[in-house]
Amino acid sequence: MTDSCLFLDAAARGDLVQVSSLLALGPSLLNRTGHSGWTALMLAARNGHYEVAEALLSHGCDKFSVNNSSQSAYDVAAFWGHRHVSDLLGRTGGGPPGFDLHPPESYFGRETLNRLSAKRTDRVWLEVKQSDPDTVYLLFSNLSPMVSGPKEDGSTKLCRFRYEAVKDLLQKLATVLVFLGVERRKKPSSSSDAAELLKRCGEKNCCFPKTPNRDLLRFSEDEAGVVAQARSVLAWHSRYSFCPTCGGSTALEEGGYKRSCLNPGCRSLKGVHNTCYPRVDPVVIMLVIHPDGNQCLLGRKKMFPVGMFSCLAGFIEPGETVEEAVRREVEEESGVKVGPVRYVSCQPWPMPSNLMIGCLAVAVSTAIKVDDDEIEEARWFPRQQVIDSFRGTRVTFTVPPRQTIAHQLIRHWIAVNSNL
Amino acid sequence: MTDSCLFLDAAARGDLVQVSSLLALGPSLLNRTGHSGWTALMLAARNGHYEVAEALLSHGCDKFSVNNSSQSAYDVAAFWGHRHVSDLLGRTGGGPPGFDLHPPESYFGRETLNRLSAKRTDRVWLEVKQSDPDTVYLLFSNLSPMVSGPKEDGSTKLCRFRYEAVKDLLQKLATVLVFLGVERRKKPSSSSDAAELLKRCGEKNCCFPKTPNRDLLRFSEDEAGVVAQARSVLAWHSRYSFCPTCGGSTALEEGGYKRSCLNPGCRSLKGVHNTCYPRVDPVVIMLVIHPDGNQCLLGRKKMFPVGMFSCLAGFIEPGETVEEAVRREVEEESGVKVGPVRYVSCQPWPMPSNLMIGCLAVAVSTAIKVDDDEIEEARWFPRQQVIDSFRGTRVTFTVPPRQTIAHQLIRHWIAVNSNL
Ligand SMILES: [Zn+2]
Ligand SMILES: [Zn+2]
Repeated sequence: MTDSCLFLDAAARGDLVQVSSLLALGPSLLNRTGHSGWTALMLAARNGHYEVAEALLSHGCDKFSVNNSSQSAYDVAAFWGHRHVSDLLGRTGGGPPGFDLHPPESYFGRETLNRLSAKRTDRVWLEVKQSDPDTVYLLFSNLSPMVSGPKEDGSTKLCRFRYEAVKDLLQKLATVLVFLGVERRKKPSSSSDAAELLKRCGEKNCCFPKTPNRDLLRFSEDEAGVVAQARSVLAWHSRYSFCPTCGGSTALEEGGYKRSCLNPGCRSLKGVHNTCYPRVDPVVIMLVIHPDGNQCLLGRKKMFPVGMFSCLAGFIEPGETVEEAVRREVEEESGVKVGPVRYVSCQPWPMPSNLMIGCLAVAVSTAIKVDDDEIEEARWFPRQQVIDSFRGTRVTFTVPPRQTIAHQLIRHWIAVNSNL
Repeated sequence: MTDSCLFLDAAARGDLVQVSSLLALGPSLLNRTGHSGWTALMLAARNGHYEVAEALLSHGCDKFSVNNSSQSAYDVAAFWGHRHVSDLLGRTGGGPPGFDLHPPESYFGRETLNRLSAKRTDRVWLEVKQSDPDTVYLLFSNLSPMVSGPKEDGSTKLCRFRYEAVKDLLQKLATVLVFLGVERRKKPSSSSDAAELLKRCGEKNCCFPKTPNRDLLRFSEDEAGVVAQARSVLAWHSRYSFCPTCGGSTALEEGGYKRSCLNPGCRSLKGVHNTCYPRVDPVVIMLVIHPDGNQCLLGRKKMFPVGMFSCLAGFIEPGETVEEAVRREVEEESGVKVGPVRYVSCQPWPMPSNLMIGCLAVAVSTAIKVDDDEIEEARWFPRQQVIDSFRGTRVTFTVPPRQTIAHQLIRHWIAVNSNL
């Protein structure tokens, strides 16, 4: 006990002299494990001690063994960014790089525009901006943005227009105009920029894609944020053109962020009512972790592509907290009972206007009983199997695309689970 | 060094004898960190070793220190569902007396009912339950629940009714019937319980209170959760009786959780549309912390009681993340720029149907410039001044009542920041 403790400690500190002398006295120390199944090699890898790792390897230590979180020494080195060590360990096989502790900014979540919401009630300012030659217009039809592309890499770009190009369109009654905001980093309005912008409008391959769930995932992060905002507001206009309180017609106000009832006697005109403002639907989406800490619960809907599994999810109901919604949805859909819930990150999802609230949740029961109306199948997936799916080796199922918060939650768990 | 390794290992294994004897020999071991910055307390918390955690605390160990993933021992215990350990860590001292590290369950947030949402589409089951003599009815008028009280301590109770008492009311056209759920812990339906329930209905001081924002805060935690659910759904019915897509009339379905358009040609009948389901409006509410870590930003609206200051708050807009909404609202309302944002807890707020998402946010600028339309005044309050307000000593301002998430956020900050 004492020797193995000393040995592991020396490896963690990078004390090559002590590691070597302890090994000389007791070669059986080499693959000894300590707390949470960590070996000396993993501890050296954790702290980037190249020489110690090299010495341990030269003594023939087992570099493929994994700790209680199923991480090899390679996983640990890669995770903590010790590139020289992971290169050393990776030369003859190893684990997956690229699992980040910090969940990345979400697709659809970047704000490149300052919404300047105070300007929405400033009619004069909005009117001046409307015909300003520097103002940029985006076009949507049936909630699809006009884009150019896709390019060879599958990406698309928003088509941008000047006032001159859209002024006739603006006169049409059915046109809905929404003020999205001003660019945060005002680019110098050089003539080449302007030319670039206008050129794009003339491109022949501009179109309105027809399959939103797929085509909306092809933008750059900058453009995805703008698309999320615009599409959500437009979806609201398309569904809420009548006053839900009295059934009367409504008029657009405040730069496209308000609809007021035209019926002068309507209750919705007294005080502030949510009927007049865009709707955002909060949704919980959660990765449920097995009580053993080493498996996660994923499910699939019939509509999913073959072989794809994802996180469970559902709408938050009136009078419900995020945490209770997670527990209710998981139990309803899979029969699994959930204890602790932890918020991780969120994502606007403009299909049509959801706010996906992403959580990790720890199960307190493990038996699965699927609600057939909601999902087709749910299963516990061991950590290694999930890693294999990300790596594309020995793939037994596929995870959702990287633009989804489900993908990011699963990735995050792989990363953070090493430390919990 | 060797000792610290043994000590940490003993704590992880829950070996109280070894932990104690090592501590007796080397008291400086107490806060020593090992791999990834984990202390003995964190390791004990990870594995649910209550006695070891207790012993470490009794020796005065630092329970607020965090590991390399910024997790305190409390975080670790809470995440892994070791409730007894997290309770221990959340309760014993540390912060100023009376300030709990653990954000409490929110008022309006308790779920005493199992919503049984799958039963909402089961018309036969619902119909049988409707006339079941064990079914309990609550009455609302103008979104106010019928209550008895207030008692001397200011509390009120929901009035409960049996089918016999309400069956005439159920026939009326204007009556909206919502299935809330079934009680989680089914009390034995003893005759005394039934008598108690029925007795309450006959009380003379039953009434519908007229000032929702105040009167809805007088319930027990159990009843507040039910009120939140019921009132939010009823508020939706009162505002959304017409189809917003075509202006037509709608019919109530699914136990009061759906309204379907009666116009057979309406777009809202094709596919699933949020127009048919209750609306929940997500709101960010945040306590902004000064870059020095020792002051917080509070503001007051003109409508607030004299002397009261609270957290800033605002609706999340379409296409926005929680974190971006926090940054936008704080800058719009106070001129202060915000960097990191951390989710703390949330609260359903049935006025009429908000989901308050509570965050701590760290300011990266300090100059205040108030938006007069939104708030009257905003100020940085030193920590001691906030503590004084809670204690009722040397009070220079008042905080919102304990039932609000604003109150809980401020309290939480006092507790967590005490050790910084
Ligand atoms: Zn109206
Ligand atoms: Zn309709």
